[in-house]
Formats: sequence, structure tokens, C-alpha cells
Amino acid sequence: MAPQYKLTYFNVTALGEPIRFLLSYGNIDFEDVRIEMEQWPSLKPSTPFGQLPLFEHNGKVIHQSMAIARYCAKLVKLTGSNDWEALEIDSAVDTINDLRQKIAQYHYEPNEELKASKKKPLVEETVPFYIERLEAKVKDNDGYFACKKLTWADLYFVAILGYLNFMLGKDLIENAPNLQKLKEKVLALPNIKAWVAKRPKGHF
Amino acid sequence: MAPQYKLTYFNVTALGEPIRFLLSYGNIDFEDVRIEMEQWPSLKPSTPFGQLPLFEHNGKVIHQSMAIARYCAKLVKLTGSNDWEALEIDSAVDTINDLRQKIAQYHYEPNEELKASKKKPLVEETVPFYIERLEAKVKDNDGYFACKKLTWADLYFVAILGYLNFMLGKDLIENAPNLQKLKEKVLALPNIKAWVAKRPKGHF
Repeated sequence: MAPQYKLTYFNVTALGEPIRFLLSYGNIDFEDVRIEMEQWPSLKPSTPFGQLPLFEHNGKVIHQSMAIARYCAKLVKLTGSNDWEALEIDSAVDTINDLRQKIAQYHYEPNEELKASKKKPLVEETVPFYIERLEAKVKDNDGYFACKKLTWADLYFVAILGYLNFMLGKDLIENAPNLQKLKEKVLALPNIKAWVAKRPKGHF
Repeated sequence: MAPQYKLTYFNVTALGEPIRFLLSYGNIDFEDVRIEMEQWPSLKPSTPFGQLPLFEHNGKVIHQSMAIARYCAKLVKLTGSNDWEALEIDSAVDTINDLRQKIAQYHYEPNEELKASKKKPLVEETVPFYIERLEAKVKDNDGYFACKKLTWADLYFVAILGYLNFMLGKDLIENAPNLQKLKEKVLALPNIKAWVAKRPKGHF
């Protein structure tokens, strides 16, 4: 049978990987379509808001990576036991996403001079501010981001960490033992381990 | 009885107003705490990630405005009838939030020269790109952002529109009749109308 879900994204981890992690975690088969940059200009005008990833199911197409990841997290039962737990998880995910955006604002800055001026406050203030608080959060939650149990916030973070490290040019969690342990724990989940072993080697 | 929910935010609409709209829509009483800028430096270090709004319930405190708004939307049953509808609504909300961030990147740019250089592409390209597509989306969904019925995406947009207009310095929807009709429809909901009539007059 053909997979019921189709994910279209670039041939990288980045915003697509949390979705791939979540579907893999639940053993949900999906079509993993990867667009090379030279194909993008011809595809872009046909997308809803000029963005990838796109997610297709039952003939419907939708964009927005976080919303898609949350939907997949519901499929695989990683959104908590009640609405307040779902809120705690969403809050953790949005905080990790804030950190991603702050790193991206540096990494994708086209003006070299401006980019250089953004590096010091990012590396010396913003990143340590976030990592210190995320590390404390994981310590307080028995080794997880929220609700003292495995949730999609944990898979989201580990799936996107390689991309964050790539953009920043260093390992974000080099001094954060609880975040390191969380990473090891997620990567040791059998379905995640199998996915990481078989996934295509993208550009980052 | 004291309200079961407490929202702490600045004395403005902005990121707090969707939450206030949603609770008001459901007739849910809440403590509407408003912080003036001069109080913020002493409060900031005690917040989880140096940000407002904060939301309190049952002795628990949480941050992240979108996550809080989604929780409130569940309380008032505006998150759709199933997981796919919830995804369509989340996708619409995240798209509106993308537009907010793009306008904010211009408005809050501290360097005057850079700010001026950001205005033309924002006003002539980015904003029309989003408004054109949001307008089409509302037209396709019988006057709503998603699922052909009232959802929290509609309340989110109308609650934050004044802030977007303030940051941009013009009315975003001046040429978008479907978005205008949606705005009128939301503002005519009895509980929203009552909230807007009684809310404190903040700085914007």
C-alpha cells in the first residue's frame, strides 16, 4: 500500500526533520520527497505561501512545519495526557523555535559586516541564556523538556539540533550534560535509531 | 470567586490580546494584569525566559503567547472538530504570526538607516504577498481562515491586527474586502464586542 502521508522538503534535516522523526517514532510510513535547490524556483509558485515543508494526506496539502509536527505528534501520542500538558509541551517547543530563529537571523544575514556584528551577542549572550534555561528545564523534568516524560518537545529538539549546530558553527550543548543525556536517550529509541541509520545523507 | 486564570502582559494589545479575546469569547473570567514598562526590568529576571505574556492557572506559570492562545482556544472550543482541522487552524495562525514577525523585524530595527531600507520591500512585496494569499484563503473558506467556520485563527487575526497596523503605520487590510468582512464579523460577536468596549485603553 502507498504511504498515507507525503512530506515535501529540501534535502536537509532542518525544519523537515522533526516531522520525519515523529512519523518514524510511530512507525508511520511516509513518502519522503526531497527537493534540490535547483528545482525550487519552478516549484515555489505552486506552494501556498512560497514555503516548504508541505505535508499531504487524503488529497489535502498543508504548510507550516510546527503545525505539521504537532499533528504528527498527536498521531504518535506524544502531546501529553491533557490540555495543560499539551500547553507545557507547546511552550517548550516554541522556546526551542525562538532559539532557532535567533540563530537563523545570524546565519542567514546576507550582509557580511552585519553578520559579523551579530555573532558576539548571539554566542556570548543569547545562546547561553537559552541553553542554561533549557538545561535547567530538562533537569527539573527528570531528563525531559516537559511533563517528566517523553514528549514531542524532546524529539523536536534532537531532530533540529544538528541544524542549529550547523548554523551556529559549534555544538550548542557542549556544556549542558542534561541536554546531552536527553539527546542520547532520544537517539537510542529503536525507531529513531533505525530512521537515523537509514535516512538520506542531506547537505546538513 | 477569584478568576481561575491570570494573564500578565504589558499594557498593550499585541501578543496578549489574542489570549484576552479567546477567554472573553468563552466568557471565562481572568485576571488581566498589566505591567508598565518601568516595572519590567525588576520583573524580567523572575520570568522563565525573560518574556511576557505569562499565564497562570492552578499555581502553575507558563510563557509563550501562541501556546497559551491555543490552550485557551481549546477551553472555548475553537480548535476544530478533529486533528486535521486543528492542523489547518494552526497553519493559518502560524502564517499570520510569520507576517507579524516580518513586520516586527522592520518596526523594532534599532538602526534607523537599516530600518528605512527594510520598509520598501516590506510594504511593496512582503505584506501584499501575505495579504493577497490570506484574502484568498478567507474567500475560499466562506469568510473564515480555516474549516469554513469560526475558529481561533479568526479571533487571533482580529485581535492582533491593530498591533500589526500600528507597527506598519498603515491599515493592512485596506484593499482586502474579505478580511475586512471577517474583522467586522469577529468584532460583532457579542462577547468580543463587550470585551473591546470595556478593555483598558493601552498604548496601542
